[in-house]
Amino acid sequence: MDSMDYGVLTPAWAGSPVSKLASDAAFVQAMLDVESAWVKVQANAELCTVAEAHAVAQIARVELYDLEQLASRTPDGANALIPLLGMMREQLKAHQAPASAASALHRGATSQDIIDSALMLMVSRVIQSTVQDLWRTATALANLAEAHRTTTCVARSLTQHALPITFGLRASNWLSAIRTATDQLEKLSFPLQWGGAVGTLASLEQFLHTAYAAPSSAELTADLARELNLEHARTPWHTNRIPLTTVASALAAVTAALGTFGADVLTASRPEIAELSEPREAGKGGSSAMPQKQNPVHSVLLRNAALSAPGLLATVFTAAGTAVDERPDGGWHSEWSALRELLRLASGAAHHAATLAEGLGVHSERMAQNMQLSGDALLSERIATVLAPTFPGGKPAIQQLVIASLGDGPSLRQLLREQLSEAEFSEPELDQLLDPADYLGATDRYITHVLAEYSAWKESWQSQF
Amino acid sequence: MDSMDYGVLTPAWAGSPVSKLASDAAFVQAMLDVESAWVKVQANAELCTVAEAHAVAQIARVELYDLEQLASRTPDGANALIPLLGMMREQLKAHQAPASAASALHRGATSQDIIDSALMLMVSRVIQSTVQDLWRTATALANLAEAHRTTTCVARSLTQHALPITFGLRASNWLSAIRTATDQLEKLSFPLQWGGAVGTLASLEQFLHTAYAAPSSAELTADLARELNLEHARTPWHTNRIPLTTVASALAAVTAALGTFGADVLTASRPEIAELSEPREAGKGGSSAMPQKQNPVHSVLLRNAALSAPGLLATVFTAAGTAVDERPDGGWHSEWSALRELLRLASGAAHHAATLAEGLGVHSERMAQNMQLSGDALLSERIATVLAPTFPGGKPAIQQLVIASLGDGPSLRQLLREQLSEAEFSEPELDQLLDPADYLGATDRYITHVLAEYSAWKESWQSQF
Amino acid sequence: MDSMDYGVLTPAWAGSPVSKLASDAAFVQAMLDVESAWVKVQANAELCTVAEAHAVAQIARVELYDLEQLASRTPDGANALIPLLGMMREQLKAHQAPASAASALHRGATSQDIIDSALMLMVSRVIQSTVQDLWRTATALANLAEAHRTTTCVARSLTQHALPITFGLRASNWLSAIRTATDQLEKLSFPLQWGGAVGTLASLEQFLHTAYAAPSSAELTADLARELNLEHARTPWHTNRIPLTTVASALAAVTAALGTFGADVLTASRPEIAELSEPREAGKGGSSAMPQKQNPVHSVLLRNAALSAPGLLATVFTAAGTAVDERPDGGWHSEWSALRELLRLASGAAHHAATLAEGLGVHSERMAQNMQLSGDALLSERIATVLAPTFPGGKPAIQQLVIASLGDGPSLRQLLREQLSEAEFSEPELDQLLDPADYLGATDRYITHVLAEYSAWKESWQSQF
Amino acid sequence: MDSMDYGVLTPAWAGSPVSKLASDAAFVQAMLDVESAWVKVQANAELCTVAEAHAVAQIARVELYDLEQLASRTPDGANALIPLLGMMREQLKAHQAPASAASALHRGATSQDIIDSALMLMVSRVIQSTVQDLWRTATALANLAEAHRTTTCVARSLTQHALPITFGLRASNWLSAIRTATDQLEKLSFPLQWGGAVGTLASLEQFLHTAYAAPSSAELTADLARELNLEHARTPWHTNRIPLTTVASALAAVTAALGTFGADVLTASRPEIAELSEPREAGKGGSSAMPQKQNPVHSVLLRNAALSAPGLLATVFTAAGTAVDERPDGGWHSEWSALRELLRLASGAAHHAATLAEGLGVHSERMAQNMQLSGDALLSERIATVLAPTFPGGKPAIQQLVIASLGDGPSLRQLLREQLSEAEFSEPELDQLLDPADYLGATDRYITHVLAEYSAWKESWQSQF
Repeated sequence: MDSMDYGVLTPAWAGSPVSKLASDAAFVQAMLDVESAWVKVQANAELCTVAEAHAVAQIARVELYDLEQLASRTPDGANALIPLLGMMREQLKAHQAPASAASALHRGATSQDIIDSALMLMVSRVIQSTVQDLWRTATALANLAEAHRTTTCVARSLTQHALPITFGLRASNWLSAIRTATDQLEKLSFPLQWGGAVGTLASLEQFLHTAYAAPSSAELTADLARELNLEHARTPWHTNRIPLTTVASALAAVTAALGTFGADVLTASRPEIAELSEPREAGKGGSSAMPQKQNPVHSVLLRNAALSAPGLLATVFTAAGTAVDERPDGGWHSEWSALRELLRLASGAAHHAATLAEGLGVHSERMAQNMQLSGDALLSERIATVLAPTFPGGKPAIQQLVIASLGDGPSLRQLLREQLSEAEFSEPELDQLLDPADYLGATDRYITHVLAEYSAWKESWQSQF
Repeated sequence: MDSMDYGVLTPAWAGSPVSKLASDAAFVQAMLDVESAWVKVQANAELCTVAEAHAVAQIARVELYDLEQLASRTPDGANALIPLLGMMREQLKAHQAPASAASALHRGATSQDIIDSALMLMVSRVIQSTVQDLWRTATALANLAEAHRTTTCVARSLTQHALPITFGLRASNWLSAIRTATDQLEKLSFPLQWGGAVGTLASLEQFLHTAYAAPSSAELTADLARELNLEHARTPWHTNRIPLTTVASALAAVTAALGTFGADVLTASRPEIAELSEPREAGKGGSSAMPQKQNPVHSVLLRNAALSAPGLLATVFTAAGTAVDERPDGGWHSEWSALRELLRLASGAAHHAATLAEGLGVHSERMAQNMQLSGDALLSERIATVLAPTFPGGKPAIQQLVIASLGDGPSLRQLLREQLSEAEFSEPELDQLLDPADYLGATDRYITHVLAEYSAWKESWQSQF
Repeated sequence: MDSMDYGVLTPAWAGSPVSKLASDAAFVQAMLDVESAWVKVQANAELCTVAEAHAVAQIARVELYDLEQLASRTPDGANALIPLLGMMREQLKAHQAPASAASALHRGATSQDIIDSALMLMVSRVIQSTVQDLWRTATALANLAEAHRTTTCVARSLTQHALPITFGLRASNWLSAIRTATDQLEKLSFPLQWGGAVGTLASLEQFLHTAYAAPSSAELTADLARELNLEHARTPWHTNRIPLTTVASALAAVTAALGTFGADVLTASRPEIAELSEPREAGKGGSSAMPQKQNPVHSVLLRNAALSAPGLLATVFTAAGTAVDERPDGGWHSEWSALRELLRLASGAAHHAATLAEGLGVHSERMAQNMQLSGDALLSERIATVLAPTFPGGKPAIQQLVIASLGDGPSLRQLLREQLSEAEFSEPELDQLLDPADYLGATDRYITHVLAEYSAWKESWQSQF
Repeated sequence: MDSMDYGVLTPAWAGSPVSKLASDAAFVQAMLDVESAWVKVQANAELCTVAEAHAVAQIARVELYDLEQLASRTPDGANALIPLLGMMREQLKAHQAPASAASALHRGATSQDIIDSALMLMVSRVIQSTVQDLWRTATALANLAEAHRTTTCVARSLTQHALPITFGLRASNWLSAIRTATDQLEKLSFPLQWGGAVGTLASLEQFLHTAYAAPSSAELTADLARELNLEHARTPWHTNRIPLTTVASALAAVTAALGTFGADVLTASRPEIAELSEPREAGKGGSSAMPQKQNPVHSVLLRNAALSAPGLLATVFTAAGTAVDERPDGGWHSEWSALRELLRLASGAAHHAATLAEGLGVHSERMAQNMQLSGDALLSERIATVLAPTFPGGKPAIQQLVIASLGDGPSLRQLLREQLSEAEFSEPELDQLLDPADYLGATDRYITHVLAEYSAWKESWQSQF
């Protein structure tokens, strides 16, 4: 029995791009990338030779390492970098690297430098792909908002029918939340961690002191950040975990925004409601025993991610709030898998959301039928507002009529008609009064606003290429 | 037995300013402020009379309401605004307000508009005072960082002695985290919620339609936001809860940053370490049975807040991620007390942190003594780096000496001396090699950087007045 | 502005019995009860006089204390008992108690003894009332299970129609979960905490050593437990917080079991589904603007409790897992409000569940109609099982027919009939095959089993009186 | 880049037995075991042939399956069983099994039956090994409690010195918490889930109806539970998730109890305290750059587990409380990885705790020295109790002396001596008064009690073999 996980218990991200981009192999590769970049920076600064840097680059390939063995040795030092470093040194020997390469490797660094930086590197890589799935989702929702700008349907509050809106507005509300959450992702900064054993770079500075014409440690750190495409944090953040809690919060916000989208699709794809349906894809969501059943699997997975993320977020904050000394005694260790799993959930959810949004079936006739269930009473708020001032008995009398209309009796329209002469209120006036499409308030303006924000946002993406 | 809470079980914020600023009375006042501001905005727009607005303003004082009764009626509609509105109408009558005032009151609004806006109002008010406590904390830490720029002490990693740093660097690390977290608080936006029953403003627009020369609903909403000093959200966010999760994350980040400060003070005020001590204040932290005992109560309360916040944060995100329809069916209701408690914890913790930072006792002799416990071995990393190239047997031999020195035998200095002729390495060279104050790397630069950031930040506060 | 909470932001328990039973006043009374009981136990053992015990009992009434002041002083020692003790001593003086009463008061105890014991006392008191609400809920659900044993309705899986069940089975499933969770509540033990400053009872034993013919500290502790109706823990549990995590888990299990009940009612009371409706109660759930709207408020509050409990549970476990030394440095302090809020949520939810279960409207015609939406395809699993062996083309052919029947074409029955001669499969046989009420499997047996468990359980309650 | 996890980011359990016992392969094997057992039960009941059962057993070996492919297909149906079943059918074909074997396979079952049962199976298997590690831990702690029954050391409260205890009592407190938590693990029941698509076993009963002399579905279910060594739940629990929350709570309780053990060792192994040290093991906890540094890695990992578990527990409860319909729409899916990770954390922590407890270095001299830091003032509580009645000035005067003694002045003993004539209080009396070993209260009794409980418990294990 091997000890690997493949994602069997985490369908929200299994099989999506993040399953490779945030696997253990990806993380180990990120650690190797950091170590290798550091030697390259040293070579550029003539602190080691190009041959040494080349030798390290040669062995900085995850394929060379037995990750099961690596994992089994992590408890020895409570982190993965310590055994990896040992294995890298063995690889250098095995590759007959100059002995001096081992000296340049990891020079002046500490395991937290490598692990924190590798986490940031992995997160930043995944987020690039995640954001693209969120853009796809947003684009699909923008299209739905535009296409269904005037498709009326019932708005629900605490599960009950409340008033008419349009499906375009609902789509634009999803879009709005997803844009806000994605904005947080896009604004994240991914700082390099580089401080040596206790965040003073003492060892590195000692080395530079003895080196001829060496650049300053600040210059080297800046070079390293540039090489890795990370932000150059001007001070180490070994026990200042706010950079990490900020990343975690943004990822959780994405799962929350997508969770709402999923929750609405789940509701709307219930057979009794049937206003929306998930894309039918070969082999997905079906049941061989019950071929009539099409499970809304994408939405289920969005909900799965939204329910799973908050607990992981709590772990990241608990770890941050209990950090102590110059390196935390267990808190730091708790961040890794919680943050990585948040990353996977957000990214996997974004992937499913894009497919869902792009293929969402919208059933406007059914929306109209469902709205009809509430009949004219759906507009009772409006009826009261408009008629109360002149209606005999005022608002209470109108409310009585609304209640009277709820059973099997005459419609509210009929009841109103009985009380209002055509002179007072003509048939066309009554038609208009009771027309849901005429009681949409600022719906159109809101959609326009959200689509304008979307367009501006889209331009900002496109300018990135 | 009454049903009130006074803060008896929540010492982290009881008795601090937030206990009044975020009490139920404060929240109800915020709801009254929103309702009253809305009528004032209508009056300004000549949609109601000044007398009506005045009548509403008169009864928009929390002292007029029986909050215990109000609370007991919240389950009827699952929120507090519904019964409050009834009570406000009774007050209008009792105050002999014109009957028309009741029509202007809450016109076109929904309970979620008032509750969400009142929450934002309450949070924004509290954060003003919280941020001032964080500035006090930051200033005190900046002073410590400067004053102890060169006060050497031992840095610890996974609880063990690692290398020397200075206490000024530790203070500057606390400062750095607190500045980052406070920055998130300061950048928060507090949007008005204004959308009517289902986020379309249909009822308001209906009313405006019939009013002569009325401004648009967008203009009125902007006026209301301005009146309340809230941000003018261009669309309602009834089920887009990212504005709220963002506030919650920033509050939790504050408790995390302060939690680390507290954790470090707790460790350092252990009698065996005794590097720091909490301010001795009359009546605080003492024990009558054990007068020698001075409990680090401020730090305990910082830790209390840091341990309590993550679970509440999880609740806010769970609620956000399960929001559904045009108004959530339980998620929304779960946000209120979780967010309010996060607010109290962050604010109460900031209050204790300011007192703690301003009165922190720093015992530099004890720092020196503790560092001495590790003897010369504290610099073994440096010794190996400097001597290994020329030392007989190289790094392994030096490591052997380090280990040999750990017991009761000769000091590491002696052992080194035996192996190195004075010609190779003079006494002054050895003194310098083994001087912790000479092995601080970038410590000074980092402190300077953090203090410069602090100064720029401070200027930004001061420019606000 | 006062600093009190009344429950304005916590509708899940405001106005329910727990709002008084777990208020700050109730908790302070519980602390007073513990202190008073301890002096009484001393008097019984002739370790103090009856007059002293009487004096303490006199001032052990929460009405005598200014709880706002008490709360504001909790940060001084990081807990509420320290200032309370001071106030009790002042009360003794004010009541002209013998000076010696103050010596007997709190003799040998520590603040954690009183607070932990008072928490257990408060929890045990609340649970008595909570359990009765759960029994009411269970009884109502048992009645529904029996009454609707054969009321067929559609079972749903991942929101989609799956197969027929009966509403009685659904009710019996709710009952089963609630019984299991209540069972955990009923089995809880509520241990007295009694250990003195560091859990050795050193001070008490010192005192007993000098007293004539004194009982042992073990006997006194047992007496105190008996007096308070708490379990006699044989050792203190100052840093063994498992007794508390166990209570918290049981409370959270109750909110989870009730959350499922609420979630199902929320779904079923959607107008498009309309299989269930909440009891219509005067003044509850209604909307004056929209009189046709009846919000499922009880279910919303059950969901509110279920979403809020997990974060609080996490706090209790985080506190437990970071307990350190002989009294934790912040973890202990985090337990109080988290545990109390869990208690309130579980108890408030139980209260709403009882009302909901007792007044639940069950609409069996609508259940039948909804089931009809899936038509004969609902039984496709059965059809395939029964017919596949003999059907031309086997299971795949049947699946084809099922899919063909989903649109507007002929019914599945028709399609089957076309393929099967009456000789092979008579009309009555086909009727039976396609009768949902004939495809209920073990439904009846399961209901019978759950009702039998319920009956046995009910006998156990009744035997308690 | 592959998509596997090896445990690189989870040192708390990587390399420990649970890494294999709860891997994806282990879980898939558990699913295969459930499917295979079910066919075997059918064969025993002559509902299928022995050859068919044999054919299924042949392919019920995880080595036959490509788990990466399996994982990547889980999103199609939102769970792993659906693609596994397809792959099993392919394997049957590939192994030239009789076509009828595929009919017996999974007969009447639903994916939730297999997944829930497989989870329970996996948990029960892991817990067997976890409990043994907890027994080892308990035994080692019992030995420490006995060996150090009278080794005095200082007890700490809110980090400060409070009173003397013995290290034996501290060990017995750890033991007590671990025993309580383990007791919950040992009492867990692991019910089989068996209900078919909607928890009615309709399909199975249909099949049995047609079979000759078939046993009842209740009998078959009981047989299956017996075959798998699971509890025979009398009803399905598809949406009653209390069985799962109970397992999760017990696992989290174990991590909490071990977290306290770890927290205490972390504190006590700080160089300034140095009362305890982790076992020195080759290659563990060391640092090549700093050979003098020995990191307390086992304790760090215990703390890591204790900080990570609560968030996962919250997820399990959130899932349970939002379960809906006859199969939850995302909640169920959130349980799997949260529960599995809790299992790993508890089991990995138990493994490290056993090693830690068995090899813990206890430094009694250092305990004595640390206690000496507080000098005679450590007993100020006792001094006041004993002397106050006769001391001139009473308790306040004694408190003054205690405070006077805290600085560099004369010792408390000296100050007392000055006030007390030898006639009043002889030197031996003063010696005894100030002897920490004489002020241990019920310490010995408590240790005896905990060891007696341990012994009874141990007998119960031993009787299991």
